[in-house]
Amino acid sequence: MTLRIVATGGTFDKHYNELNGTLGFADSHLPAAIARARLTVPVELEQLPLLDSLDMQDADRARVLASCQAATESAIVIVHGTDTMPETAAVLGPAALAKTIVLTGAMIPYEIDNSDAFFNLGFACGVAQALPPGVYVAMNGTVFDWNNVQKNRAAGVFQTK
Amino acid sequence: MTLRIVATGGTFDKHYNELNGTLGFADSHLPAAIARARLTVPVELEQLPLLDSLDMQDADRARVLASCQAATESAIVIVHGTDTMPETAAVLGPAALAKTIVLTGAMIPYEIDNSDAFFNLGFACGVAQALPPGVYVAMNGTVFDWNNVQKNRAAGVFQTK
Amino acid sequence: MTLRIVATGGTFDKHYNELNGTLGFADSHLPAAIARARLTVPVELEQLPLLDSLDMQDADRARVLASCQAATESAIVIVHGTDTMPETAAVLGPAALAKTIVLTGAMIPYEIDNSDAFFNLGFACGVAQALPPGVYVAMNGTVFDWNNVQKNRAAGVFQTK
Amino acid sequence: MTLRIVATGGTFDKHYNELNGTLGFADSHLPAAIARARLTVPVELEQLPLLDSLDMQDADRARVLASCQAATESAIVIVHGTDTMPETAAVLGPAALAKTIVLTGAMIPYEIDNSDAFFNLGFACGVAQALPPGVYVAMNGTVFDWNNVQKNRAAGVFQTK
Repeated sequence: MTLRIVATGGTFDKHYNELNGTLGFADSHLPAAIARARLTVPVELEQLPLLDSLDMQDADRARVLASCQAATESAIVIVHGTDTMPETAAVLGPAALAKTIVLTGAMIPYEIDNSDAFFNLGFACGVAQALPPGVYVAMNGTVFDWNNVQKNRAAGVFQTK
Repeated sequence: MTLRIVATGGTFDKHYNELNGTLGFADSHLPAAIARARLTVPVELEQLPLLDSLDMQDADRARVLASCQAATESAIVIVHGTDTMPETAAVLGPAALAKTIVLTGAMIPYEIDNSDAFFNLGFACGVAQALPPGVYVAMNGTVFDWNNVQKNRAAGVFQTK
Repeated sequence: MTLRIVATGGTFDKHYNELNGTLGFADSHLPAAIARARLTVPVELEQLPLLDSLDMQDADRARVLASCQAATESAIVIVHGTDTMPETAAVLGPAALAKTIVLTGAMIPYEIDNSDAFFNLGFACGVAQALPPGVYVAMNGTVFDWNNVQKNRAAGVFQTK
Repeated sequence: MTLRIVATGGTFDKHYNELNGTLGFADSHLPAAIARARLTVPVELEQLPLLDSLDMQDADRARVLASCQAATESAIVIVHGTDTMPETAAVLGPAALAKTIVLTGAMIPYEIDNSDAFFNLGFACGVAQALPPGVYVAMNGTVFDWNNVQKNRAAGVFQTK
């Protein structure tokens, strides 16, 4: 079993810019998070352009799909912004690849106190190795099928439709 | 799906005592960790006596087994010390309960920088919901069957026998 | 010796709002920071409205001055936004109170990894007890007189004029 | 003004060894702490052997004194174990160097949650630049003269004799 982790940005990877006081993107936190997880499973990290998922266009989602298609691993974790995670899942699901693809992310950036990011990364890595091929969203302890998940923005949680 | 998390101590839950400068046990970190994970799956936390797993006796392992037998949940995560995790797994495995039981822990205590604890907790919560009934050890991104796992203490990693 | 700490907001106290993904203000981090510092010196915490210092108006600076005037303590630390810290210092300095007043803040919010906030708080608490009466800016290991300090925004550092 | 920081070990610099589960010494945390503090004052870091201060012998304290004597800086912060900080201060005080020497440390190691280490480091850096020549202990917001300080081990605080 080898695991592929694909970084696409989102809240998980937001970084505080001390010169202008805003949250944006710089280097991904994933190399540090993967080292901290002391993974004993072989892992490939692929870094796509880091985007706020509200800024993702069709071409960006097509790029995520292309990464999944090209991957030689059968277990793939995609770290993604929460706001349009179901939309990207809806691009990946119909492709029906013979791989277990799990989208995850975070409600609080990895670098901010009390972040759920590291838990969600572990959760997704477990689900990606244990579930049969398919496309799933795995957030905060719940696994969703790609075609039955939505973000409740007012409550800040994922739920079925 | 409801999840049961059983705290038994181990490195995950070690706490620095500032009065005597030693690592021991006080309140479990699991309530804070569970809150931080923002779990949307219903979860029951059961706290057994917190022990260094090198101090675990047969009666302590029997107590863990009794908790698993009494649990109404079909997905159980046991937070356990790393040094005798395979021994406890070897008590739980032959019981052949119709539940998915996953032992996890940490190489670095939850409260210390660069800890793998929160990742492992997430990983185990994913595996416990996704794998068929059985007893597993889930550490640092790898899932092991209960009867084919050992800790390599020199390297600080879990591996098959 | 008793110490007064006055919270006015600024980067130090910025908080990530997980519902809308922005940095703003909620409860001050100072009660937690003060507890963590295990202060053995008596301390009074006064919380003024928490503001981004770019949003501070004359009335807001007058309120800070009024707090200093009303304080019974002779050592005062003001936690303030960095962008207009010199402007507030320039309101407090000419008042020539018989108190040691030290403005400090942070380049990275207290709750974000790698923050300088807790160091600066300690630094200011030391300076406030050790220097003669006057108004000072204390940031990142350097103490400035109130009338000879400016923020170099491009470099993200404080320096003399 | 240039600052010298002298690392001698102690709780501040204790490090968790994941292979044997004990707290000991490895690389000092001070280079990381100094970088995080974004010091704008020139600073020289001198690393002496890192010791638990209960293990310090006369020769170890003589070495600390020699470092202070050799230093070209007039402001010196010594990061030291708490258990015998007053004893080392009692070696440095009678030497009556024309320098401001401040001993500090931590009740909780720098790398453990809720540590006071970073605050104390900032506090000592402030005191070392602001007080007249002499030898001081600066812990948890209180400054003590070298000849009137003791650690109350039961309460975990420093106090006058």
